[in-house]
Amino acid sequence: MKLKNLVGQRFKERPADCVIDSHALMLRGGYMKAVGNGIFSEFPVLRRVTSKIESIIREEMNAIDGQEVLFPVVMPAELWQESGRYDSISSELVRFQDRNKSKMVLGMTHEEAAVHLVREYGQSYQQYPFMIYQIQRKFRDEARPRAGMIRVREFTMKDAYSFHTSQEDLEQYYKKCYDAYNRIFKRVGIPEVVTVASDSGMMGGNVSHEYMLLNEVGEDSIVLCSACDYRANMEAAENIVENISGNTVSQLECVATPDCKTIEEVCNFLRSDVAASCKAVVYQKNSDDTYVVAFVRGDYEVNETKLRNLVGEEIHPAEITEDSPLVAGYIGPYGLSEQVDYYCDLSLKGIDSLVAGANKEGFHFTGLNLERDIKGIQYVDIAKVKEGGICPCCGKPALTIKRGIEVGNIFQLGTKYTKSMQMQYADKDGSLHNPVMGCYGIGVGRLAASICEAKHDEYGPIWPISIAPWEVHICCIRPDDEATKQAADSLYEELMKHKVEVIYDDRDGVRGGQMFADADLLGVPIRVIVSPRNLQNNKIEITTRDKSVTEVVEVADSLEYILELKEQLYTELNFEI
Amino acid sequence: MKLKNLVGQRFKERPADCVIDSHALMLRGGYMKAVGNGIFSEFPVLRRVTSKIESIIREEMNAIDGQEVLFPVVMPAELWQESGRYDSISSELVRFQDRNKSKMVLGMTHEEAAVHLVREYGQSYQQYPFMIYQIQRKFRDEARPRAGMIRVREFTMKDAYSFHTSQEDLEQYYKKCYDAYNRIFKRVGIPEVVTVASDSGMMGGNVSHEYMLLNEVGEDSIVLCSACDYRANMEAAENIVENISGNTVSQLECVATPDCKTIEEVCNFLRSDVAASCKAVVYQKNSDDTYVVAFVRGDYEVNETKLRNLVGEEIHPAEITEDSPLVAGYIGPYGLSEQVDYYCDLSLKGIDSLVAGANKEGFHFTGLNLERDIKGIQYVDIAKVKEGGICPCCGKPALTIKRGIEVGNIFQLGTKYTKSMQMQYADKDGSLHNPVMGCYGIGVGRLAASICEAKHDEYGPIWPISIAPWEVHICCIRPDDEATKQAADSLYEELMKHKVEVIYDDRDGVRGGQMFADADLLGVPIRVIVSPRNLQNNKIEITTRDKSVTEVVEVADSLEYILELKEQLYTELNFEI
Repeated sequence: MKLKNLVGQRFKERPADCVIDSHALMLRGGYMKAVGNGIFSEFPVLRRVTSKIESIIREEMNAIDGQEVLFPVVMPAELWQESGRYDSISSELVRFQDRNKSKMVLGMTHEEAAVHLVREYGQSYQQYPFMIYQIQRKFRDEARPRAGMIRVREFTMKDAYSFHTSQEDLEQYYKKCYDAYNRIFKRVGIPEVVTVASDSGMMGGNVSHEYMLLNEVGEDSIVLCSACDYRANMEAAENIVENISGNTVSQLECVATPDCKTIEEVCNFLRSDVAASCKAVVYQKNSDDTYVVAFVRGDYEVNETKLRNLVGEEIHPAEITEDSPLVAGYIGPYGLSEQVDYYCDLSLKGIDSLVAGANKEGFHFTGLNLERDIKGIQYVDIAKVKEGGICPCCGKPALTIKRGIEVGNIFQLGTKYTKSMQMQYADKDGSLHNPVMGCYGIGVGRLAASICEAKHDEYGPIWPISIAPWEVHICCIRPDDEATKQAADSLYEELMKHKVEVIYDDRDGVRGGQMFADADLLGVPIRVIVSPRNLQNNKIEITTRDKSVTEVVEVADSLEYILELKEQLYTELNFEI
Repeated sequence: MKLKNLVGQRFKERPADCVIDSHALMLRGGYMKAVGNGIFSEFPVLRRVTSKIESIIREEMNAIDGQEVLFPVVMPAELWQESGRYDSISSELVRFQDRNKSKMVLGMTHEEAAVHLVREYGQSYQQYPFMIYQIQRKFRDEARPRAGMIRVREFTMKDAYSFHTSQEDLEQYYKKCYDAYNRIFKRVGIPEVVTVASDSGMMGGNVSHEYMLLNEVGEDSIVLCSACDYRANMEAAENIVENISGNTVSQLECVATPDCKTIEEVCNFLRSDVAASCKAVVYQKNSDDTYVVAFVRGDYEVNETKLRNLVGEEIHPAEITEDSPLVAGYIGPYGLSEQVDYYCDLSLKGIDSLVAGANKEGFHFTGLNLERDIKGIQYVDIAKVKEGGICPCCGKPALTIKRGIEVGNIFQLGTKYTKSMQMQYADKDGSLHNPVMGCYGIGVGRLAASICEAKHDEYGPIWPISIAPWEVHICCIRPDDEATKQAADSLYEELMKHKVEVIYDDRDGVRGGQMFADADLLGVPIRVIVSPRNLQNNKIEITTRDKSVTEVVEVADSLEYILELKEQLYTELNFEI
């Protein structure tokens, strides 16, 4: 198509409210427009990109025997009450009443709808296994939408659900899907995506993986081992701390630590090592505001996800009031009010002598030995892994921490939904069982934005050809020059005859610099520049958006050159065309 | 794919709550499942059909320079407040509050979103004309969802919006779209769809057309002229009545008509012609419950849409209370309380002597002559057209009335939205104007169901090949017979190599009758039956779902025969493959 007809305007200035490049570039390039907080409309350029991503996902889902279905966006609350999530999910789930005062929800994920759809179909073991998927809009009322299309409230998602008669069968299929996901990320141009073990969160189930694009703008922390293959989301990463006991015995002593509220201040004041201190972090349960105290070694941080999983319900950072049984700034495990639940992290295990709060305004203990002083002390894993930490897989102190954007996830759900929603199949012997489920998601818009974030320069996105809005971008410099216009027109026609997707810039009165700036923002991989100067020598210029190719070729050879270059770019992505 | 792996179960019994065949057959065939009132999930079979419909629509929209975009399902209320529709649309529009108590709506149509998206882009006349469209879910909280996928609350819709600098330009484009729609309906297999002039309703604007599939289960009444090309929706059809004055003069007389509440009873009692009577139908304005009386000739019915357009606001059938200024059963235009608005239909014009209510319990007038007795009498068109009525186009008494399902609509919106939402462009001379808009919709699911309604027999749908879930259905009768299985398997492989979409039934232990019943429900146009009996003669049977072809062909010729038959079926739909 001709660029002059393309709906969507491009502009030069970086919008002030963009914290990440992909957001800024996609706004500047006329890819999308915010309709509300975390809600976007897609202009034609972005719709072309997302359509291509959808096609690739569809192909790979069909290749692992997925069958495409469609669930509704709006569902009756009953469906979510069946699974229990109507009550367990907080305000992320949009609830409303229809004209007849029936309670409805907006789909933020579709496990319930999937079970509902196949509950009758899957009554015999003979139907198993099977997988259904959809590509559909979802709404999740995020508290903090951010970073353009990376974290939004409404989004297009591919969500797949597989059903099995055994955990083994699920695991086999899970592996298939795991590989299909890797193929998808390769084909869309980000083969560098890594998988990490993750926390299953509100989805339920045990084993789950996230596909992470390592990138410093990511909001996830990824723990990687530089000595082995271990990779995990910070939320799920096991933290190993080896405290070596010096077999020294010290006495428990209550000392004044006036005005020392933080663990650093205390250790500074007492001239003791932070690594031999016990830090308290206080939370409250969302349900009844009762207190939960997490104790970790002074130089560690609490991993809220792990703590939440142990507590078994939602928690939030505490507000400690005057009448609470806690003495803010002086909380320690010894002498703590029995009204308060507490958890001691494994990082505290084996320390002979700790500094800890004395639960008394202005005082701390020194010489605290948890094994000696607290009866039946138990340790749990609730701290965040640190750079240089010990790998739970190979045991070497080789952990590093990186930022990542989650571009996909896969879960082994088990029977959480089939049990609660009473989906059963009859086995060979007639006995009834709940099928085992897996679920597999990819956010389409987030993937587009993530690719942009991974592949761009200061001038615009550098789209991989498989998902680029077009394959070739022709700039006709000086279309008022008849020969130039004719050469460009004819190449445009020829390319289209060869089924190449072309965007053609033949705008009158637009200078080369402006054309190139626009082309940079559209990020099309192959650029063809037809100009009077080169045409004098019967040549045209062909470059790639990533600057790896800059050639001046004979006009007569240009079509073939472009077709070959196109094929080569697809081949690099492991793509058959 | 193999039928035994297809997700979705088929069954024999017609579900009790289905009033139309397409609903029953699509449930029986495993096409969809109700999730709530007017809310469905699509099984893989239907998703294949709707995907194909979407592709055809997409191709035709692109062919008229449409550019695909995507608007959100959830929008902030402000957008709809700008256009005024947040207040003007009643409970069909779902309203809710998000977690921050911001008012939101669910998109039931996207004029506001379209204007919002291109408001900045369209600031210069040079950008015009352009058309954007999306294929996206919508939610409309219908009071009475019915007939399966025909009238639902959530649906996938293609909605397109064009923008122009003049009414002439809009009209030119409107014609293009009109033709594109006809191509779409031809390609999906229902060339018999007709266009009718329609009422623009809540969309605003003046000229609009509906695409109607004439079918007795339709909920729309269509007025057609058997003498010329005139076609209109009953809601919009002009009603012409020619009363011939006999130049007789009769005296206005008030007569007792005890217990005669309906116009038929009155005329029967007075032995007068119903066609010389004046019937009153009473409504109330939704806004303040004030009364609006419609007077029509006794043998006509009120067209509420026309009346509503005249009143200029929503109305509903009246409840006449004791203290109202109206005497129920005895309402007439002469002597009617001045507190009441009334409209006299054109069907009353030119009648010398009418029977009409006397606005007095138990009494009617005879000999009423409106021109003589009511000062400044004005007539308006508020009656429904009748079978045999006069065509407003050719003037012949040749109108017929049929039922139709609306499968698409196109509107000339004018500047309703661009004005209210302050979208402007600068013309050549720098002057500012509101662009002129058109909008164009097709409901994907309704179209699928309508095609099924038009093309089915008692055993299942007879899908046109262009939108059929598969092109070929192979039934392998007795797959336990090795030769039969081998022949069927090999044909299946061959067809897939030739890019034919095949569903293959090789279920063990399923009898031929069951296989054929299932095939009928799937409605695939070409059926191939591989059986031991025919194979003995080295033959296989090839039939079409509509029974127009039943051939027994040599195994060696079968592939070619099927490929040719496939091509022929596409050609009949004017389809290039």
